[in-house]
Amino acid sequence: MNLILLEPYEVDDAGAARLTGARAAHVAAVLQAQIGQRLRIGRLDGPLGTGTVTSVDENAVCLECLFEPARPPQPRVDLLLAIPRPKVLRRLWSQIAAIGVGQIILTNAARVERHYFDSHVLDAGTYGPLLIEGLQQARDTWLPRVSIHRRFKVLVEDDLDGLCPGGARLVAHPGGGQSIGEALGRAGSRVLLAVGPEGGWVDFERSLLEHHGFQAVELGQRPLRSDTATIALLTLVHDALRHIG
Amino acid sequence: MNLILLEPYEVDDAGAARLTGARAAHVAAVLQAQIGQRLRIGRLDGPLGTGTVTSVDENAVCLECLFEPARPPQPRVDLLLAIPRPKVLRRLWSQIAAIGVGQIILTNAARVERHYFDSHVLDAGTYGPLLIEGLQQARDTWLPRVSIHRRFKVLVEDDLDGLCPGGARLVAHPGGGQSIGEALGRAGSRVLLAVGPEGGWVDFERSLLEHHGFQAVELGQRPLRSDTATIALLTLVHDALRHIG
Repeated sequence: MNLILLEPYEVDDAGAARLTGARAAHVAAVLQAQIGQRLRIGRLDGPLGTGTVTSVDENAVCLECLFEPARPPQPRVDLLLAIPRPKVLRRLWSQIAAIGVGQIILTNAARVERHYFDSHVLDAGTYGPLLIEGLQQARDTWLPRVSIHRRFKVLVEDDLDGLCPGGARLVAHPGGGQSIGEALGRAGSRVLLAVGPEGGWVDFERSLLEHHGFQAVELGQRPLRSDTATIALLTLVHDALRHIG
Repeated sequence: MNLILLEPYEVDDAGAARLTGARAAHVAAVLQAQIGQRLRIGRLDGPLGTGTVTSVDENAVCLECLFEPARPPQPRVDLLLAIPRPKVLRRLWSQIAAIGVGQIILTNAARVERHYFDSHVLDAGTYGPLLIEGLQQARDTWLPRVSIHRRFKVLVEDDLDGLCPGGARLVAHPGGGQSIGEALGRAGSRVLLAVGPEGGWVDFERSLLEHHGFQAVELGQRPLRSDTATIALLTLVHDALRHIG
């Protein structure tokens, strides 16, 4: 844990916060924090800061919080992801949050199996803590917004412009032609990246995406499992945006 | 499974191969292969090819194999990795093989816990099938060479030049300065990439690596878990090498 994330309601007007549960145990047992020690903190969707330990035991840790004036920049990438197998998605939540995305838009697709929708891994109670874990790893405060869509066509035709107005749109496809850097050119403000299911998008889905502004990009010649591909593609989009500046 | 990998001894001089066990079950049940159907095959460390089904049931599948004259290019990246937690490494094996590396050089480091060396995940019987799984996913035939080193200093000072003669050497470090593309410049033939343990290399290790030709590169400002970082860094090195050509 490289950062302790606090909910806004956990910090009172005087800047005092009281941690209990797993975070308190971590601060006491793993970080072995002492009174007066300064810890990296962040307010969810808010600024980073410093928390000075004012009291500590295994059940509760009290911090005096001082936040920076500005919030860190919000990740400039949104992810449209065909729902992976539950076992794979469970591992991905924290990794996606650690790499940094504004939104995670999960969708059905022809090659998504119907029973994936019944998995607990799509419950906010499951993925919320995993996203927080990723943010605490990567020292970010921006919690990705999550939405789940059962009808791909309705999502792309009716909802996507509202969810992601403006910005570039990329769809990954093996042998898709241009690289991510080429597709973005000099015009990278925000990017919406679409990653298909195991086995890829079917022709109808690819053509619908392309009709709605998605440019095909490729990730070399090697077909990757969807979790590996998601991490690799998000890495390349972030890297391309860094170079555009 | 996007490719069926065969050991050299499994193909006789006339090009006939007989699969049993899990591969036969996969071809029969998942691919539902019929007599006369052509499957993508590869010979371990050898060429890709086509296998025409000559007989099939759940216990055995016979193929008539035709291989391409040349082998696919060997991955131009080698990975020097401080041994991650066994649970993390178990997941990484197939992902590393899928992204593509020539060698996986696992090493001890100050922040590697001693009991990691006792894990089954370092046994060839465990990681071999996981590497094969990654190759079959990514349609590659080059099995990464694996070596495990208990003494970091001996590895870097005495063994590394023999294992990895020539090529560029990069060590990932948060805030390390230049990007991977900048570090490689135009001079990318082979790359040896060093990825540290959870918590990073200690100063002694970094300085030893730098004295042995490793340039520090960074992956943005976000500290990532070592599995996420490994995939992200390998992706960026491959991408940089593709652009150098």
